[in-house]
Amino acid sequence: MDITPEVIHQHAGFPEGLLLDCGQTLPDFRLAYRTYGALNAAHSNAILVCHALTGDQYLAETQPVTAKPGWWENLVGPGLPVDTNRFFVVCSNVLGGCMGSTGPRSTKPDGEVWGTDFPPVTMRDMVRAQQMLMARLGVERLFAVIGGSMGGMQVLQWAATFPERVFAAVPIATAAYHSAQNIAFNEVSRQAIAADPDFLGGRYWTQGRTPARGLAVARMMAHITYLSEVALTRKFGRKTRRDATADAATETASNFFGDVFEVESYLRHQGSSFVRRFDANSYLTVTRAMDWFDLAAEHDGDLSAAFAGTRTRFCLVSFTSDWLFPTAQSRAVARALNRAAANVSFVEIETDRGHDAFLLDEPDFHRTLAGFLAGCAEHAGVV
Amino acid sequence: MDITPEVIHQHAGFPEGLLLDCGQTLPDFRLAYRTYGALNAAHSNAILVCHALTGDQYLAETQPVTAKPGWWENLVGPGLPVDTNRFFVVCSNVLGGCMGSTGPRSTKPDGEVWGTDFPPVTMRDMVRAQQMLMARLGVERLFAVIGGSMGGMQVLQWAATFPERVFAAVPIATAAYHSAQNIAFNEVSRQAIAADPDFLGGRYWTQGRTPARGLAVARMMAHITYLSEVALTRKFGRKTRRDATADAATETASNFFGDVFEVESYLRHQGSSFVRRFDANSYLTVTRAMDWFDLAAEHDGDLSAAFAGTRTRFCLVSFTSDWLFPTAQSRAVARALNRAAANVSFVEIETDRGHDAFLLDEPDFHRTLAGFLAGCAEHAGVV
Repeated sequence: MDITPEVIHQHAGFPEGLLLDCGQTLPDFRLAYRTYGALNAAHSNAILVCHALTGDQYLAETQPVTAKPGWWENLVGPGLPVDTNRFFVVCSNVLGGCMGSTGPRSTKPDGEVWGTDFPPVTMRDMVRAQQMLMARLGVERLFAVIGGSMGGMQVLQWAATFPERVFAAVPIATAAYHSAQNIAFNEVSRQAIAADPDFLGGRYWTQGRTPARGLAVARMMAHITYLSEVALTRKFGRKTRRDATADAATETASNFFGDVFEVESYLRHQGSSFVRRFDANSYLTVTRAMDWFDLAAEHDGDLSAAFAGTRTRFCLVSFTSDWLFPTAQSRAVARALNRAAANVSFVEIETDRGHDAFLLDEPDFHRTLAGFLAGCAEHAGVV
Repeated sequence: MDITPEVIHQHAGFPEGLLLDCGQTLPDFRLAYRTYGALNAAHSNAILVCHALTGDQYLAETQPVTAKPGWWENLVGPGLPVDTNRFFVVCSNVLGGCMGSTGPRSTKPDGEVWGTDFPPVTMRDMVRAQQMLMARLGVERLFAVIGGSMGGMQVLQWAATFPERVFAAVPIATAAYHSAQNIAFNEVSRQAIAADPDFLGGRYWTQGRTPARGLAVARMMAHITYLSEVALTRKFGRKTRRDATADAATETASNFFGDVFEVESYLRHQGSSFVRRFDANSYLTVTRAMDWFDLAAEHDGDLSAAFAGTRTRFCLVSFTSDWLFPTAQSRAVARALNRAAANVSFVEIETDRGHDAFLLDEPDFHRTLAGFLAGCAEHAGVV
């Protein structure tokens, strides 16, 4: 994995740095991003899409490292619900990430790799950096901010931190704070990474190594939480296959009479392909930012205060079978917005595909998003 | 960890061996067990309790390795729902386990450690071995077989394999097959163990090492699945503490501004205490047995055929917030028993404590069990 500026297509440098919530200043950072469509003359048609934990800026085109389709190609493009014939769509790799934005695998001003010296970043830090990018691109006010999962946390953070810069906000399959259960799963991920001897206390880059097995275990576990029991059962059930691909250790651990369950080999594949595109220290940095996200805490525990006086129009979306960010967590956000007398609609989409539904072809979800954006565009006078 | 016969109190050797489902014969095996109460003159008051994945035979007394209370001390004892003044209660460590019964850390007839040579065992193998133990103890017919989680799988297997030897069966928080989601979680556990460099392809015992970090990660993840989101939230929420105990690698991975969430340090404690009492190869062996459990598969996919003509009285118990073995899985067993015209009652206990509820003080559950056993004792004429 070596992400060079040539690979990442578009990037912006910020030599002025950024004062982080932890008190440190991150000097001279860079954000990698992608844009789709064109900014109109009034600069009023910009939509920022915020990606999830392991997502990146390649939402509507082939991802250059994996050569796989962009993660929201079904939603963002010409004539699609997020219509790039009409809107100027921007997505940037988060601060702390590993697809070209400054993060633990970037170099410090002294030429050394940041690694474990990379400061802790918060959701608000990520959003502040995004705001600097939007200003650089000539966008003082966003028509909309859209994102699912951790991206939805950023949408909420945008609306709370920059209320005058966000006309419409679409937080999808998300929450205003990370739950104890989600923190617990993230912690197991981090322990799996730390348990890998190639982690070297986070200094694996000094030896040219990566904690690939630990990171794969982390990814495998997280992947289960993205799906529903029904989806797993439909996709794999108890189907088995001969175990031809496993190495010796894996085989010893998992096969039985020479067979493995298909769900097992699927998860192994998910784990091993993930480690080729993601940096372990970035995984630690970004999961910590998720865990520490608690929008109400910035306002003495009162979530509605985070949105006091807001004129942003909100459309909250949740999915019935999502047990990572259950509907109840979106409902809590809706209630807080109602207490702030905000303009808010809340749609729970019926689906059995779990948290992953926000990435999949869910017609009701896509119709909801298209309708909301069209209505908002009329109100905002976007032409 | 070194489990000697002195430590395990009671054990029985079976030099005749056992022909396993895999086709191999396990020679000269041993089961470690504990008994509570006394067998009556008619040999009609015996209850076999089957333990869960990481349980053991010490259900009603201090566990000698951990010095903690027995795992069902609140349920089994004089005057308790499983009343040892009335019943002769037996619990044996499963075949493949590591608390004194023959398993991967036992020695083969040639004096070498079984280790990775230990053959795969099934739920049915475990139950057949238990049946040999019961015969040895003079019990031809059990008054009842009781167990939760994997123990409940064994209860179902007992009723299917030895219908004439089981008067009453109480499968708790269990299923007739392991779901794709549960297989997936077990597979991540196994991969975490295999990823530990001290696993040495399962031959860690040759070097006097144990894959403690991988096993701890496996345990931490499993522990999340035993609880409910509500229980985790009530117990920990987003409370934090200063991170004083973590080692350097852990600290790098998990703390943030010097703090960790309480749920994180709780899980770490769960992981590190578990590895002192459990063998990694046993964990692999027993989780595989769970994953491959599919009672209907023994009967061409028809679960009711597994119970055809049964005269056993069943009491199924599930818990509303159990997402590892959800009520729907118990309901499927109840339906199959109904199709077999079996004598079955099914109670879903309202609780927010998740799968773990079967180990906790749940008054409705305890009343259900006490009532069912009393009624059955009357029918069976146990005095």
